[in-house]
Amino acid sequence: MHGADQNPTAQDEYRTATRRIRRFSLHLTPIVRSVGAADQLQMLECSKVTPKLDVDTANLSDYMRGKNREIQERIYDYFNSRPELQTPLEISKDEHRDLCMRQLLGLVKEAGIRPFRCVLEDPAKYFAIVEAVGSVDMSLGIKAGVQYSLWGGSVLNLGTKKHKDKYYDGIDNMEYPGCFAMTELHHGSNVQGLQTVATFDPLTDEFIINTPNDGAIKWWIGNAAVHGKFATVFAKLMLPTHDIKGLSDMGVHAFIVPIRDLKTHQTLPGIEIHDCGYKVGLNGVDNGALRFRSVRIPRDNLLNRFGDVSRDGKYTSSLPTKNKRFAAMLGELVGGRVGLAYSSVGVLKIASTIAIRYSLLRQQFGPPKQPEVSILDYQSQQHKLMPMLASTYAFHFATAHLVNIYSEMKRSHDEQLIADVHALSAGLKSYVTSYTAKSLSICREACGGHGYAAVNRFGILRNDHDIFQTFEGDNTVLLQQVSADLLKQYKEKFQGGTFTVTWNYLRESMNTYLSQPNPVTARWESVDHLRDPKFQLDAFRYRTSRLLQSVAVRLRKHSKNLGSFGAWNRCLNHLLTLAESHIESVILSKFIEAVERCPDASSRAALKLVCDLYALDRIWNDIGTYRNVDYVAPNKAKAIHKLTEYLSFQVRNISMELVDAFDLPDHVTKAPIAKKSEAYTQYTQNVGF
Amino acid sequence: MHGADQNPTAQDEYRTATRRIRRFSLHLTPIVRSVGAADQLQMLECSKVTPKLDVDTANLSDYMRGKNREIQERIYDYFNSRPELQTPLEISKDEHRDLCMRQLLGLVKEAGIRPFRCVLEDPAKYFAIVEAVGSVDMSLGIKAGVQYSLWGGSVLNLGTKKHKDKYYDGIDNMEYPGCFAMTELHHGSNVQGLQTVATFDPLTDEFIINTPNDGAIKWWIGNAAVHGKFATVFAKLMLPTHDIKGLSDMGVHAFIVPIRDLKTHQTLPGIEIHDCGYKVGLNGVDNGALRFRSVRIPRDNLLNRFGDVSRDGKYTSSLPTKNKRFAAMLGELVGGRVGLAYSSVGVLKIASTIAIRYSLLRQQFGPPKQPEVSILDYQSQQHKLMPMLASTYAFHFATAHLVNIYSEMKRSHDEQLIADVHALSAGLKSYVTSYTAKSLSICREACGGHGYAAVNRFGILRNDHDIFQTFEGDNTVLLQQVSADLLKQYKEKFQGGTFTVTWNYLRESMNTYLSQPNPVTARWESVDHLRDPKFQLDAFRYRTSRLLQSVAVRLRKHSKNLGSFGAWNRCLNHLLTLAESHIESVILSKFIEAVERCPDASSRAALKLVCDLYALDRIWNDIGTYRNVDYVAPNKAKAIHKLTEYLSFQVRNISMELVDAFDLPDHVTKAPIAKKSEAYTQYTQNVGF
Repeated sequence: MHGADQNPTAQDEYRTATRRIRRFSLHLTPIVRSVGAADQLQMLECSKVTPKLDVDTANLSDYMRGKNREIQERIYDYFNSRPELQTPLEISKDEHRDLCMRQLLGLVKEAGIRPFRCVLEDPAKYFAIVEAVGSVDMSLGIKAGVQYSLWGGSVLNLGTKKHKDKYYDGIDNMEYPGCFAMTELHHGSNVQGLQTVATFDPLTDEFIINTPNDGAIKWWIGNAAVHGKFATVFAKLMLPTHDIKGLSDMGVHAFIVPIRDLKTHQTLPGIEIHDCGYKVGLNGVDNGALRFRSVRIPRDNLLNRFGDVSRDGKYTSSLPTKNKRFAAMLGELVGGRVGLAYSSVGVLKIASTIAIRYSLLRQQFGPPKQPEVSILDYQSQQHKLMPMLASTYAFHFATAHLVNIYSEMKRSHDEQLIADVHALSAGLKSYVTSYTAKSLSICREACGGHGYAAVNRFGILRNDHDIFQTFEGDNTVLLQQVSADLLKQYKEKFQGGTFTVTWNYLRESMNTYLSQPNPVTARWESVDHLRDPKFQLDAFRYRTSRLLQSVAVRLRKHSKNLGSFGAWNRCLNHLLTLAESHIESVILSKFIEAVERCPDASSRAALKLVCDLYALDRIWNDIGTYRNVDYVAPNKAKAIHKLTEYLSFQVRNISMELVDAFDLPDHVTKAPIAKKSEAYTQYTQNVGF
Repeated sequence: MHGADQNPTAQDEYRTATRRIRRFSLHLTPIVRSVGAADQLQMLECSKVTPKLDVDTANLSDYMRGKNREIQERIYDYFNSRPELQTPLEISKDEHRDLCMRQLLGLVKEAGIRPFRCVLEDPAKYFAIVEAVGSVDMSLGIKAGVQYSLWGGSVLNLGTKKHKDKYYDGIDNMEYPGCFAMTELHHGSNVQGLQTVATFDPLTDEFIINTPNDGAIKWWIGNAAVHGKFATVFAKLMLPTHDIKGLSDMGVHAFIVPIRDLKTHQTLPGIEIHDCGYKVGLNGVDNGALRFRSVRIPRDNLLNRFGDVSRDGKYTSSLPTKNKRFAAMLGELVGGRVGLAYSSVGVLKIASTIAIRYSLLRQQFGPPKQPEVSILDYQSQQHKLMPMLASTYAFHFATAHLVNIYSEMKRSHDEQLIADVHALSAGLKSYVTSYTAKSLSICREACGGHGYAAVNRFGILRNDHDIFQTFEGDNTVLLQQVSADLLKQYKEKFQGGTFTVTWNYLRESMNTYLSQPNPVTARWESVDHLRDPKFQLDAFRYRTSRLLQSVAVRLRKHSKNLGSFGAWNRCLNHLLTLAESHIESVILSKFIEAVERCPDASSRAALKLVCDLYALDRIWNDIGTYRNVDYVAPNKAKAIHKLTEYLSFQVRNISMELVDAFDLPDHVTKAPIAKKSEAYTQYTQNVGF
């Protein structure tokens, strides 16, 4: 930060405050930190150790900031100007649902933000909007997602022009609030097992929607309990045949079903709606259960992009099989996963910012007769929070990449890109949301008693975010899609096919990596080597390649006795590890690219430090695997561990700048313990002293 | 279960239902399970593999069940008979606080349960009561703990006869609701850093209690915001001197301070009380903040068991130093930690029961053209839940042991036992509550969307339990006490001293274990060997011994440059790993003893299976460490991994019996998805269909 004092301007209050706190915190703990730094030098026995980096937060922030920052600011400003639309800490389910609807109406009708217009044309902007409204209240983000991405998205992506003409405006302006009725009580992950039926009646030219049993009740349907007027209902399309069977099952299709009267809001005949009740979080969203008792809808209400029924009951489709149609339909819905991965990183930024700011300000214990030290100076606290901060940066760049290729896919409809986005969105959604969920608990615990005050947000963030691991695809199921995709490509490789873009590394790596580990490099332990992106990426990819090859062999072996289902299940833990390993490889490669691309030298140095911590922490976490195959010798394992602790310490020294570079507006972090200055004073005042 | 059908009696509905469901679930998935079992045989290449065990739930349950079951049943019966005292799913903070007080009053005055009478005389009974009321509503358990263990306990344990005479009845019959005012805004873990002062005024024979600054405000004080009449206030005792200093700091002492008028309930003069507000959980407990503005209390209100002040301002104590007095005072408060460890296992039993019952009943996907399989048949679900079930059993026996030695200590006041209970309660409280906290999140996630319904309890359990990791000693701090104790004993060993009971193994083990690992046994991989308790315990103890010895060396090395505080911090991650490793060793040894002690052969076989899973899963989790020092060769590592997966599968096959043996009454698990029979039907009915 040398030179920083020469340019304080009046407008630049924010950076001044940052500097002041850092100085304040340095002032309190000079002894421990300087002694520590000196000894770290000795510990590493290396002359190349960098001193504390200078980080220009504004520059770093510019590099991080998305191009849709402006519309996010508009959203923040709108809600800041409308205190009556801000969600209080304590609110009943019913009041919360009502408030959440008013927030959404205010956003659309008063602030003039129209998310629906971006769903197809500018997905990056759409995701930015949803992230911003989600940071106002996560329920609002999800309610908006239900309306525009699920209900609206199903009309746009699964329907045709007639549907767009009829429903677009109503969805856009919130006159047609709607639901996405896929999940049933007995079927969540297994969408092909849905039991709701839509039987075509050629006499009246209608479909009859029916819930055949309790297990087929549509369950957890957002917007259903209170506000929805329509639902996109997923049901097996049944067509009359002229043979003895009577009906032919054409597979799961989507239908628009009106559920409440547009004027009176009365539930329509044949529809039964029940309230799914109080949830762990997201109580601003009115989840309900829907049962259909022979509900008749016009034939036109079939969302017929991938399959249609003619007036005389003939089925037509551009796609040859039930499975291909099903895949095409689900393929159109991956946007939700992209959005969840992206928003989950947003939650992780908020939580890590709160925990790190608090840990810098909070002091407890210290050397005899000296001031207490900041709790972030404890190695244990660094261990909890610094790899988490590094992961937040890593996920930031990985999900930004995902949003880019998703947008590109929506433009180009390129087939390889579609496969790529499908697997990467499944993998990142799963990996990132699981990581964020765990981190929210770690942050709460790391902030002790003050982390337990509702006002400091960890509780509400955790409760609201928790279900990110489940909806839009259960994480354990999604990871299996990643593995299945890898195995498919692995097989194709040996048949001369090509890998899609993201998996491309495996083409080269398989041969290189599957030879025996080099006993010489396995012992290399210099800092230069361990911080070399090539070593790091090689280590990640070696692991993925090895897991891929070994699971392929195991699957082949077990299929003989167990069949493919049994063999898959026998290797399931292995397959999940493979998927995680692959996703980590992708995340690291995107992070390394982002470091190299960064134009500002000081920001690049900071990012490089963070990236090294991300990489080495992950390698250390899985050191058993590396040791088992002697990819890493004992001396190298020890060096990796020491360097990881050292990098955590270095990142701690720029952690204030690193969280500030997320550039979250104050009201996003909200928590009194995360205030940029005078945290304690404000915290005290907050409770009324 | 052969033979079970021969003895169905009318009273035995419960076991019949259990059996019916198991048969039902077996019926649904015969193919996968039997194929799986056959192939597991092949996988292990071992003729000794046991078939599915017969488990007599009643026998196992008898062995598990504590001797204080009867009073727990009385508590359950009382609350079952008073539906108006049951906590609804959704309730505001203020209503919850009010309800919680009415629950406690009902318990004491109507049901005639008097926990206070057991605090000293029968601690095991006291913990059983608190566990039972905590399962009715965790807030009630904590509120009772504040009243009897903290407020009441401080009077009994830190005061003398005059205090007991004056306060016993009022505490017992709830006419004197009280607080335990230790934590301050700026000081939680560092109790010696408290800043509240109690200055003796010889003129009036009073202490003047004062809060010198905002940071010294007593914070998070349970019972303070609404109900408390008294508080035990921890403050630095200041005595006038005749020299230039004027006042002498005698260290932190405890004082009884009346905070509200006994009749009018008005806050007393000089006392300021503020509400700490809405929390992540436990909102039935009214946490408040207390500020004292020169509040005068009689000299008699000093809790004077370990230090007293005479009329003329002279200090007397049976203990020679400030540190010894402080240690003696805190030593009397370890009961709280014992209770938290014990109750945390209770929470883990509830959560694992709900998750496992649901996973047995829920079906999703399956082999082509066959019924869907129970999700507990997936290796991934077994991986999430079976080691957790094994840990629940392990913790059950470890905390039962802790309660026993705590009770013994309260009787004998044996010095070695005091040290033993101190370290073991710190370690088990920390280890168990951290494990339970993580498990609650895993259970929620493992139950998918239905786990997110508030009615299925994971949310409320997690939110309420979360702070168990922090209060009564932050887990990260408590683990350091364990390490410090180990190091102290390690040092004494080399000076000819003895280890206390729990650490005794280290005396023998140090020499054995610190020689080089045996390269022959490092390769042994037979099932018999891996399931040998001697191998398992040796492996756990080897790790602990090694960590202890290496950290002692590192500490000595670093102290030269960094001083003892800096050196400790440099080794902090290492020290925490040591503490966890030691606690795991103790847990395993207690589990092995419990298996061997079990009189019923079938229960013993089941427990042995569960114990093996616990041991091998832990070894596998830390396989990197074992590989790094070649304690385990690669072939053995692989065998451990395979056997762990196999044992998870075996435990899955008796998981229904294992959770039933916890013998939790239906209303304790409550969750519709955990109903013993017809879970889905009831679940459906519950939401109104």
